[in-house]
Amino acid sequence: MPRYKLTIEYDGEPFVGWQRQPNGPSVQAALEEAVFAFTGERPPVQAAGRTDTGVHARGQIVHLDLSSERPVETIRSAINFHLKPQPVCVLVAELAPPGFHARFSATWRRYRYRIINRRAPPALDRGQLWHVPGSLDVDLMADAASVLVGHHDFNSFRSTSCQSPSALKTLDLLQVTRHGEEIHVDVGSRSFLHNQVRIMVGTLHLVGREQWTRGDVETALAARDRAHAGPTAPPHGLCLMEVRYELGADRKSDAEETVDDQ
Amino acid sequence: MPRYKLTIEYDGEPFVGWQRQPNGPSVQAALEEAVFAFTGERPPVQAAGRTDTGVHARGQIVHLDLSSERPVETIRSAINFHLKPQPVCVLVAELAPPGFHARFSATWRRYRYRIINRRAPPALDRGQLWHVPGSLDVDLMADAASVLVGHHDFNSFRSTSCQSPSALKTLDLLQVTRHGEEIHVDVGSRSFLHNQVRIMVGTLHLVGREQWTRGDVETALAARDRAHAGPTAPPHGLCLMEVRYELGADRKSDAEETVDDQ
Repeated sequence: MPRYKLTIEYDGEPFVGWQRQPNGPSVQAALEEAVFAFTGERPPVQAAGRTDTGVHARGQIVHLDLSSERPVETIRSAINFHLKPQPVCVLVAELAPPGFHARFSATWRRYRYRIINRRAPPALDRGQLWHVPGSLDVDLMADAASVLVGHHDFNSFRSTSCQSPSALKTLDLLQVTRHGEEIHVDVGSRSFLHNQVRIMVGTLHLVGREQWTRGDVETALAARDRAHAGPTAPPHGLCLMEVRYELGADRKSDAEETVDDQ
Repeated sequence: MPRYKLTIEYDGEPFVGWQRQPNGPSVQAALEEAVFAFTGERPPVQAAGRTDTGVHARGQIVHLDLSSERPVETIRSAINFHLKPQPVCVLVAELAPPGFHARFSATWRRYRYRIINRRAPPALDRGQLWHVPGSLDVDLMADAASVLVGHHDFNSFRSTSCQSPSALKTLDLLQVTRHGEEIHVDVGSRSFLHNQVRIMVGTLHLVGREQWTRGDVETALAARDRAHAGPTAPPHGLCLMEVRYELGADRKSDAEETVDDQ
């Protein structure tokens, strides 16, 4: 059975999240229904990151198995045809390399969190921006972000419902930059704990408001307790930008699980 | 009566355009109703550019007169409060200088047209992008754009319903740049003819597809006839970015009217 790797873009707003659920439309169900309409088959569609309700993606990676080989351009355009008018589309379809698994083979994930930092609420892009009306000091946020980069126990920075057995993660990238009225928080790691990105953003926003110092972030990290970190930033500012795969990497030798529920 | 200048952002999608019309909600009516809810007054709200159905704005300028002076921060936040949940907001409220008129005092307007140039349709930002699936050569588009820059009779580049007595305009800026899968066409002039920006974009897109040459654009300009230019690009890719005012400029001595209907 040939396995296909798809790169997906979606607007998370109308969905209950990536994962198929009884309480509303999911991105996974939208894709699985489109695959069925095209092929008459119902292979499960597996994703690199199980994004939460309202979280967007510009570079989600999924895989699925079909009973026979089909041209990748046909797969891409036929699934897109059947996805209409839902805000989900296949950017690229490729034959997956042997042993490829969208979730378990992923070695790096990058998210972007967008804040609009001005008095007025957004009229454009309002579904993709967290509106923070009070002033935010980006230099203080960037400095405090450096506390979190590296190999740490991120127990303070995961939701209480997170089921990962270990909170040890290596955060490679946590960059805070201003672009006019917008602030971008770019975050990269092999994998993340549940809500980790949004809790880090909610915490850094307290630093930007000068309610917290860099030292408070150090204390929160050391506490290894969710109650000591800042609030969880709202989902709609978050977007999964990119997932990378390093072929030949032996994932079993790596102590970090490659799960990712944002 | 004090006159106030407001900088406005809006998503054009749910509106019939800037101007109040009987056939649907307009941005002008949304603002006038919000001003009435706040002040009990019904001053007309005048805009720098009367954007068409579906056209967006990040820097529209309007003015209105109130019967008494009020703090500008109160004006901004009270109008925004009453605009909810419509996708229109006041970014800045200021006391207007003497003699200021949002439309007639404007000396420069800048628009951006956004094209998404890839096979897959957009799932995010779909209301702000013109989807062109076939490949576009941006270098050819940028070269052909230079034909249109300068002082010309733009009769070929205005809608047949345009009521401006003269088609003579000075185009200061017509820049085509690629940003990954997005192409931006940035356009600046004192004022524009009806649909001028969208017809220029529709024409340059023919050059990008290599259906037209730079010479065909020269021929279209020289023809002074709408039938000789390319198609009108769809409205939702267009956004009014900025309007400038040069105080003390004597508009009556300028041969170009300062109208602008995009």
